[in-house]
Amino acid sequence: MKELEEKILADGRVFEGDVLKIDNFLNHQIDVELCGKIGEEFHRIFSDRTVDKILTVEASGIAYAVTTAQQFGNIPIVYAKKGNAKNMDKDRYTADAISFTRGGPVTFTVAKEYLRPGEHVLIIDDFLATGEAVSALIEIARQAGAEIVGCGTVVEKSFQPGRKRIEAQGIEVCSLARIREMTPQGIEFED
Amino acid sequence: MKELEEKILADGRVFEGDVLKIDNFLNHQIDVELCGKIGEEFHRIFSDRTVDKILTVEASGIAYAVTTAQQFGNIPIVYAKKGNAKNMDKDRYTADAISFTRGGPVTFTVAKEYLRPGEHVLIIDDFLATGEAVSALIEIARQAGAEIVGCGTVVEKSFQPGRKRIEAQGIEVCSLARIREMTPQGIEFED
Repeated sequence: MKELEEKILADGRVFEGDVLKIDNFLNHQIDVELCGKIGEEFHRIFSDRTVDKILTVEASGIAYAVTTAQQFGNIPIVYAKKGNAKNMDKDRYTADAISFTRGGPVTFTVAKEYLRPGEHVLIIDDFLATGEAVSALIEIARQAGAEIVGCGTVVEKSFQPGRKRIEAQGIEVCSLARIREMTPQGIEFED
Repeated sequence: MKELEEKILADGRVFEGDVLKIDNFLNHQIDVELCGKIGEEFHRIFSDRTVDKILTVEASGIAYAVTTAQQFGNIPIVYAKKGNAKNMDKDRYTADAISFTRGGPVTFTVAKEYLRPGEHVLIIDDFLATGEAVSALIEIARQAGAEIVGCGTVVEKSFQPGRKRIEAQGIEVCSLARIREMTPQGIEFED
């Protein structure tokens, strides 16, 4: 997605430890116009499939899940919660992931009543790097017996193993910007 | 907002300890069509003011911030993060809140570069009860020198002190459903 790549080149800063800072438009401040176009793009890519529900994870996937769901005719979204809150159902699916940004393990949780066997679920998230978050969402969808339509991620670090991990499970991955290499001197995308 | 009140009556369940469970459409699963209408309603209420930016907090405010921002012509949103992540700026505003659902203190954080003096900020969140979260957002906006246009919350427990706390700071509060009383036997709204 050309506009997204241009935005990353214009605003992105790369720090030691493979940290790409684009939180001025992606996941702290959000460029709502671009967020809407990202939803349109995910819809374009997956529009020939049946999609009943969008599955994402709090917090940074939610905005893109909303704009994608709008394009699919206001289908519901479900976001996995992190950790255990006292007002959550006891009847829940859980899967563990290692958080890159928080530097530790985190449990993803979805109440069983919100993911049903046979539902066609499209997974949406902001970043694909190690694939930890998306793999946990896949595990939860499979526990529920849902059909995973595919996985759409906004930005992918293609030099990290996330895509391989997910494709190895038979899931199609579409990323709107695929970063092949990044250093403090520059960012290069896959062709 | 009549449709929202009807949804709460149809789907809401009340548990001991003033817990209202409406996470089948508000903040775990999201009814995206209703979420869009909520954005339209916040826009209708605040459309005569200048609003440059929506301020909310992860995770459950984000969806409503997005649909509200769309109605204001795709203005940016900023969401406060909870806790400290290693990829966040050192240069940040912080404020503490007690989390009702998580049962402990939590630090809200916004990078300084995303809230500027004089910006007209509309605060949006899903719930207003004790007013802890909104008060922390107000504190952050004031640290930044931003102008707070008002505060829109989707569901308010009006028997709790949140509204009074916020109005005492000179901030206008609009809630789309105001619950006067709730017990496992029923839910009553303010007239």
